[in-house]
Amino acid sequence: MPCPPDVISRLKEIVGVDKFSTGASNLSLHSKDESFHHAHLPDVVVWPENTEEVRDVVRLCYEKGIPVTPWGAGTSLEGNPIPVKGGVVIDLQKMDRILHIRENDLQTEVQAGVVFKDLNKKLARYGLFFPPDPGASATIGGMVANNASGIRAIKYGATKDLIQKMTVVLADGEIIHPGTLAFKSSSGLDLCRLFAGSEGILGIITEVTLRLVGIPPEFLSAVVSFSTAEAASLTVSQIIRSGLSPAALELMGTNAVRLINKYTEDFDFPESPLVFIEFHGTNKAGLSADLALVRELCEDNGATHFEAGIGRQARGKLWEARYNLHDFILREHPGLEPIAIDAAVPISKLPDIVAYSEKASAKRGIVGYVFGHAGSGNIHMPMMGNPSDEKSWGVLEEINREIVAFALSLGGTATGEHGVGIGKIPFMESEHGESLVLMRKIKKLLDPKGILNPGKMF
Amino acid sequence: MPCPPDVISRLKEIVGVDKFSTGASNLSLHSKDESFHHAHLPDVVVWPENTEEVRDVVRLCYEKGIPVTPWGAGTSLEGNPIPVKGGVVIDLQKMDRILHIRENDLQTEVQAGVVFKDLNKKLARYGLFFPPDPGASATIGGMVANNASGIRAIKYGATKDLIQKMTVVLADGEIIHPGTLAFKSSSGLDLCRLFAGSEGILGIITEVTLRLVGIPPEFLSAVVSFSTAEAASLTVSQIIRSGLSPAALELMGTNAVRLINKYTEDFDFPESPLVFIEFHGTNKAGLSADLALVRELCEDNGATHFEAGIGRQARGKLWEARYNLHDFILREHPGLEPIAIDAAVPISKLPDIVAYSEKASAKRGIVGYVFGHAGSGNIHMPMMGNPSDEKSWGVLEEINREIVAFALSLGGTATGEHGVGIGKIPFMESEHGESLVLMRKIKKLLDPKGILNPGKMF
Repeated sequence: MPCPPDVISRLKEIVGVDKFSTGASNLSLHSKDESFHHAHLPDVVVWPENTEEVRDVVRLCYEKGIPVTPWGAGTSLEGNPIPVKGGVVIDLQKMDRILHIRENDLQTEVQAGVVFKDLNKKLARYGLFFPPDPGASATIGGMVANNASGIRAIKYGATKDLIQKMTVVLADGEIIHPGTLAFKSSSGLDLCRLFAGSEGILGIITEVTLRLVGIPPEFLSAVVSFSTAEAASLTVSQIIRSGLSPAALELMGTNAVRLINKYTEDFDFPESPLVFIEFHGTNKAGLSADLALVRELCEDNGATHFEAGIGRQARGKLWEARYNLHDFILREHPGLEPIAIDAAVPISKLPDIVAYSEKASAKRGIVGYVFGHAGSGNIHMPMMGNPSDEKSWGVLEEINREIVAFALSLGGTATGEHGVGIGKIPFMESEHGESLVLMRKIKKLLDPKGILNPGKMF
Repeated sequence: MPCPPDVISRLKEIVGVDKFSTGASNLSLHSKDESFHHAHLPDVVVWPENTEEVRDVVRLCYEKGIPVTPWGAGTSLEGNPIPVKGGVVIDLQKMDRILHIRENDLQTEVQAGVVFKDLNKKLARYGLFFPPDPGASATIGGMVANNASGIRAIKYGATKDLIQKMTVVLADGEIIHPGTLAFKSSSGLDLCRLFAGSEGILGIITEVTLRLVGIPPEFLSAVVSFSTAEAASLTVSQIIRSGLSPAALELMGTNAVRLINKYTEDFDFPESPLVFIEFHGTNKAGLSADLALVRELCEDNGATHFEAGIGRQARGKLWEARYNLHDFILREHPGLEPIAIDAAVPISKLPDIVAYSEKASAKRGIVGYVFGHAGSGNIHMPMMGNPSDEKSWGVLEEINREIVAFALSLGGTATGEHGVGIGKIPFMESEHGESLVLMRKIKKLLDPKGILNPGKMF
């Protein structure tokens, strides 16, 4: 059902004519995220500038029963913000103000549309940073709604773990401010963590107060090669078990390493599985002692190459290469689209899921690029294909299904950080069982008319 | 309304005659926690041994509309498990089995009745521990339901932050298993953190899988005296801001220090505000460098005494004294009962709340024992009185109200770790505003008949 004309003109009044569009190119820009999932055009896009405008838009849509889908930067990988039922897309990118930096409390209050990279640039002047880092240029609102995490979750937690307070517009337009600015609280029900990771289906998050971390004065990085992915992932699991507290522990399979060698000028790693390790600390002495322990563990597991003491510049290039991996994969397969794997398992099962994933693709002759946040048991394995070619794409989907089923059988999860969106809906039943009934009831309670980001999660 | 005889006899059948009591002494033992709140007798106490028995008890109570209150160790401080409407108390202390220790995943699966001290004794053999520590001999179930935290939350988080998965019996007897064993997940709504801290009003938690931490190979403690509580708390807030990661940062005001000197044989601290600092690390070199930084900060703030390099035994005695402080206070005022303060504020406001609390009691001639988890902005200030003496007790309650109101005005919370129970209900409206409406709706959704721990939180 398209938006009726009276709603269209009312929306234009609410946000103003220059923050409103029904133009084809704007609709198209808001029809698809970075996933392979089918595009769907909204009827209208609005760019509110404050919580009150969001409230007025949502209230109107609630009255008229029109779908509302919040939009951050559109960088998600599971179709999370695709407006599959049309209606209104609320693009929050004009709500991009950093409202407060409370450096002595290690907190910042931001609007949902702030891009986390911009935030961290600003925070650096205060010696602070917001640790979660999904790689892509996501907005804070998108990261909160999706519980994004990335490479540093192992030390600092996922986005959800770093939320103090938020402003949320509920389905009927009510505005609430759950949370506290105290470091901890046992007061009432934890609504912040109910909205965090809810992908816009319970309410629209317009402002957030985040917990920050001091930029560590000392970094230490190492790159370690192994002859097999199993040896690499076994080492990762042992490092975690040892009581060390790495800030990042990233695994790259041989296929991924090959692309890094090919598409960067800076690296020529042995073509075998690789682990990036990073420690953050307050002093060099402590980090060096930790590194000695890690080196011992790596050598015990047959590391074939160990390079540490990487300087700040090389370290930057290393992470840049790691972040660009997604692009390298796209460049390697022009015209094709990726299906992402995002399973996570208990850390002792990391060697199993890595071996299983590599086998599942290899036995079908598919190239899978295993990499991931190994330290938190979360692996990805993009595979490239053509979603319109039902048969060949079906094979990739089958591999995805098998890996998720295997992760669930190990007590893991279908999605470590990408969220459910559209792509992971089929696995919700087997992952959550009877809990899913309660999740649906909560959705119904908060959004009785089903207008908020419909068609997602359940 | 007392439990009808047919329910009594049905309960006896469900759990067995030896795990059932209507005897006066058992009812009395389950009528009051360690707070000053009025006792209220339940009609029956049952000691189920597994989730299925809990389910059968709850289902029966749901059918008959009879109140059900879960009971851990009864060590709470806000009347949290007092069965104010009578009915059935489910004492979970017979559900005290450690079901699994998955050392390579740093996880343990336990029944709710396991006492956390017993758990940590067992885990020590594996070089692991569960960091939250409320001091008292609480059960894991109680700690989860209350989101207990204690001295080490600053480094390792509160109980809520360390929950992977749980088994919950809902009001109608349905059993669900929310959560995952993966380190992180973006899959579905976060039900675990909705039940954690819900104080038994949404469901009864019968089993939990907890995240564990490796026992650090190196510890380093220091005890620092200051001439004023403000200098002490300012130092605490600067240590946090500096990027150091202490495992504990405890503040004790002069009155508290005086009692430690009086009731222990081991210590004779200067009678002025004291800070206990503890670092956990993987190596001595790193810790020593951190300590040097802390020493500098303390001296800059006019520390009058700095003692570090405390051995394992002395350190044990120090923490024992800290834990026994509550008892020392009771011994100092025989026959009186304590009213606890449990406010928490953003860390930069710690000096303000400490000064405010000391003034609020001193100006009325009341002795307040300021101490607390200063590193997480959480302070306590027990004051002793006679709850039956309305006038004098009213003064203590007035001080409590003033401190909470001041904490809320600073963006803080009425309860950092004790929970809402009965005592903090009056502050829920001003702390949560419109969010409280949603909390109540969620309560109504999960417990439409209002049988679960009625009379608490709202």
